[in-house]
Amino acid sequence: MGIFRKMHGLGNDFVVIDTRESPVEMTEARARAIADRHTGIGCDQLIVIGPSDRADVSMRIFNADGSEVAACGNATRCIPLFVGRDVLIETQAGLLDASLTDTGASVDMGAPRFDWAAIPLAYAMDTLAMPASWEDLPPPSCVNVGNPHVIFFVDDLDAVDTARLGALIEQDPLFPERVNVNFAQLLDPRNIRLIVWERGAGLTRACGTGACATAVAAIRRGLATGPVTVTLPGGDLVIDWAPGGTIRMTGPATSVFAGEADWESFDV
Amino acid sequence: MGIFRKMHGLGNDFVVIDTRESPVEMTEARARAIADRHTGIGCDQLIVIGPSDRADVSMRIFNADGSEVAACGNATRCIPLFVGRDVLIETQAGLLDASLTDTGASVDMGAPRFDWAAIPLAYAMDTLAMPASWEDLPPPSCVNVGNPHVIFFVDDLDAVDTARLGALIEQDPLFPERVNVNFAQLLDPRNIRLIVWERGAGLTRACGTGACATAVAAIRRGLATGPVTVTLPGGDLVIDWAPGGTIRMTGPATSVFAGEADWESFDV
Repeated sequence: MGIFRKMHGLGNDFVVIDTRESPVEMTEARARAIADRHTGIGCDQLIVIGPSDRADVSMRIFNADGSEVAACGNATRCIPLFVGRDVLIETQAGLLDASLTDTGASVDMGAPRFDWAAIPLAYAMDTLAMPASWEDLPPPSCVNVGNPHVIFFVDDLDAVDTARLGALIEQDPLFPERVNVNFAQLLDPRNIRLIVWERGAGLTRACGTGACATAVAAIRRGLATGPVTVTLPGGDLVIDWAPGGTIRMTGPATSVFAGEADWESFDV
Repeated sequence: MGIFRKMHGLGNDFVVIDTRESPVEMTEARARAIADRHTGIGCDQLIVIGPSDRADVSMRIFNADGSEVAACGNATRCIPLFVGRDVLIETQAGLLDASLTDTGASVDMGAPRFDWAAIPLAYAMDTLAMPASWEDLPPPSCVNVGNPHVIFFVDDLDAVDTARLGALIEQDPLFPERVNVNFAQLLDPRNIRLIVWERGAGLTRACGTGACATAVAAIRRGLATGPVTVTLPGGDLVIDWAPGGTIRMTGPATSVFAGEADWESFDV
């Protein structure tokens, strides 16, 4: 039997397992079975906390399809709440410093990357104002914040068919590892509305790394000044960044319940 | 803080709360918040076990939208597993006798009702071969097994647009309390394939009362002989019934995990 906690950040929900005391082997099939909302525990992502030589804890992230990913901003905010104190977290996207706040956490998400090969793109090009476009969308920017994002700044977010265009652009051969697609509307230099089509997940209530990538792109283009409040369907995140620095993301994290399950029961 | 158990019957999943020792007030808003799959615990139905003067326990059933319903066959099979022994259960659909089996439970679901006013229908008609039809579907039967069902026996289930027709028929004025729509294909007198469009929920992996109503209608029409194995997308249920008697439903029930939550945290 193992214990876990169900948590969420802006409605992006997680099963968080602590393997520091008793190791749990996590396979793709087991992660998928745990994430199943009808026959498992149910979650968008499964988060496995473990020991670390370089930080307070390590964090692995498994999508509901069992695949492992490097970064998840909403999950990262849940970790200090889970551990009960400020923590340095070792992730595949680097070491992330996360502090408790009154309603959640503030996380140093590391430095964004802009080089075309680091996004990655299929070939060399400017990633600030890309010489590429899709239908009526304006030329986007690309930012890697542990995972790849493309950001479109549009005049009227409600006029964009985000589901159709998100699915189309995610699969474009320009993005060899596919891409998270951000549709953003600048309300003023401190406020951005954002809808994100997530790679492998579709439209979601909130994408923490999308909010980071979008605010960074807006600041880099001179459209916005940090800190920027990014309003997603699930709620608000505050993102701060200055050129050359790391990204600071502040927002809510919630613990819903504690549970106890037999991990072997999920192996079918 | 209160404890609960997450269970499922053929993938129809439940949060089960035992209020026999410590009462929990259940409102529509609280049930909806608990059932939310992203910010709550997540379930198709919330089951509240309580004390009973007439049986071992009482059982109330709340849909994910917070509305209370009278009957749920898949949830009823979970109750003896939850309590740990055979139990007589007081429900809004009557007293149901449920026994543990090796892989789940066997439940006496009570006697079906066929009178047009008990289904209920909007006006008097024969409920065995109804003088009513929709598009190319054959005349159906209606059965109430605690909730209202209409059953269509078709030659080729794969050729039926169950989502479109289910939504259409559920809302037909002939059914003043709406209706669960069953699309059944008789494989032989002991085997039926079934897809159910559930009132208020749409297409589901498994509907226990739908399997009961369909087997009863098939036996009543002389198409089948009990016990009948009903194969739903989520798995098999065995239904037995003879005219004048009560329905016996046998099938799997699974306990997934135990949890502890603060019920007041779901009041927003």
